[in-house]
Amino acid sequence: MKSLGTFLQSGDWKGEKHVPVIHAPENAKKGEEIEIKVLVGEEIKHPNTLEHHISWIKVFFHPEGSKFPIEIGNYNFSAHGEGEIYEEPEIAIKVKLDKPGSIHALSYCNIHGLWENSVEIKVED
Amino acid sequence: MKSLGTFLQSGDWKGEKHVPVIHAPENAKKGEEIEIKVLVGEEIKHPNTLEHHISWIKVFFHPEGSKFPIEIGNYNFSAHGEGEIYEEPEIAIKVKLDKPGSIHALSYCNIHGLWENSVEIKVED
Amino acid sequence: MKSLGTFLQSGDWKGEKHVPVIHAPENAKKGEEIEIKVLVGEEIKHPNTLEHHISWIKVFFHPEGSKFPIEIGNYNFSAHGEGEIYEEPEIAIKVKLDKPGSIHALSYCNIHGLWENSVEIKVED
Amino acid sequence: MKSLGTFLQSGDWKGEKHVPVIHAPENAKKGEEIEIKVLVGEEIKHPNTLEHHISWIKVFFHPEGSKFPIEIGNYNFSAHGEGEIYEEPEIAIKVKLDKPGSIHALSYCNIHGLWENSVEIKVED
Ligand SMILES: [Fe+3]
Ligand SMILES: [Fe+3]
Ligand SMILES: [Fe+3]
Ligand SMILES: [Fe+3]
Repeated sequence: MKSLGTFLQSGDWKGEKHVPVIHAPENAKKGEEIEIKVLVGEEIKHPNTLEHHISWIKVFFHPEGSKFPIEIGNYNFSAHGEGEIYEEPEIAIKVKLDKPGSIHALSYCNIHGLWENSVEIKVED
Repeated sequence: MKSLGTFLQSGDWKGEKHVPVIHAPENAKKGEEIEIKVLVGEEIKHPNTLEHHISWIKVFFHPEGSKFPIEIGNYNFSAHGEGEIYEEPEIAIKVKLDKPGSIHALSYCNIHGLWENSVEIKVED
Repeated sequence: MKSLGTFLQSGDWKGEKHVPVIHAPENAKKGEEIEIKVLVGEEIKHPNTLEHHISWIKVFFHPEGSKFPIEIGNYNFSAHGEGEIYEEPEIAIKVKLDKPGSIHALSYCNIHGLWENSVEIKVED
Repeated sequence: MKSLGTFLQSGDWKGEKHVPVIHAPENAKKGEEIEIKVLVGEEIKHPNTLEHHISWIKVFFHPEGSKFPIEIGNYNFSAHGEGEIYEEPEIAIKVKLDKPGSIHALSYCNIHGLWENSVEIKVED
């Protein structure tokens, strides 16, 4: 079986426009509400047309030492020019974490497939 | 046929915790990137547990005079306590509009059903 | 406030291609697994292109006498010609119900907005 | 960067209840409508409760020799006991393919994370 994992592309978002960018604090307190911003195209804009666009971003949290990632949320960007309305592939969300771990973003371009990125976050009592 | 429209609940979000709150500028320039924030529970927090939570918010734009609303995006809040991780039912997004119209938010509580709100936005050349 | 309910279009699916068609049994036993098929375009095909397509169908159940509809599921049709791959706006699902009520389908065309339909289902012990 | 790919679990669905099962024809004609059924729990049922359930299944197609997988659809199972309504983690969909390749299913348990499976499909003129 070929794993979908072999199709997860990554790289430096400053040079590759598809790579999702994650802005999260490096440190958080346990149970504190923190803001996380995830977007595609911070440095180099990605096209946003009916033919070619970023469809969605998923965000996961992987608690350090756990076997399983937990999905934080799924965000579909639906307007790519219908009636001259455009949604940018960018969201700011709020989460509360209990343990240190890593935030993972997975995004999908309808032409160029799956892209990912992750950042570490320290969570203290 | 009973319309789903008969189940769309609304009210004053300062008194009813389920009503989605929309923060959008009253005026925008055509094609300008604007931020819209949509959340449930600004004044009175809604529960966020596996048994009872806000599952998603959808955002639409209805261009003035048009027959059809256009979906801007769909946002699923997935973490309601799994591994002590919680996502708040709140998102900030970026959109570009072409015409004046109304922003509509539709949200879903897994116990208390569908809720909506809308705000007008003026868009000028 | 203008309600999204005013934008929910319906009609006879034999004459209007956007109206979702619901195939469900008229009678079910309490807790029995039943199949429900929901689709757009049974009689008249809807376009399926990057520019114009059915994006999603949501299915709800409204238990008779309840104040709130419950979401059964949400189905996004993602392939509209990317790499010559097309997904038809059609799904068959399995549900268990406890009470009589109505099944509601809500579908979205990226150009022609929101459409709905519903059927009654009797559920007996 | 830790890749999400390292969290994609798989195995034999006859022994491990989380592994998505894919029923697709081994051969298809180019552009022909084919049915694909994807489910979790064919042999061993997975729990379906508010606390522990299969949230969604995503289906992708990877055309042989292509760099990118294409998302066919995303299916959220929303009812896990609300009002004694349950949706089974199972869908049947219809697709048209142009080339041979592999169908990939990715599913998510809110407790046990991400699981995947794939099957090959031959597509001829
Ligand atoms: Fe791209
Ligand atoms: Fe509620
Ligand atoms: Fe249409
Ligand atoms: Fe599980």
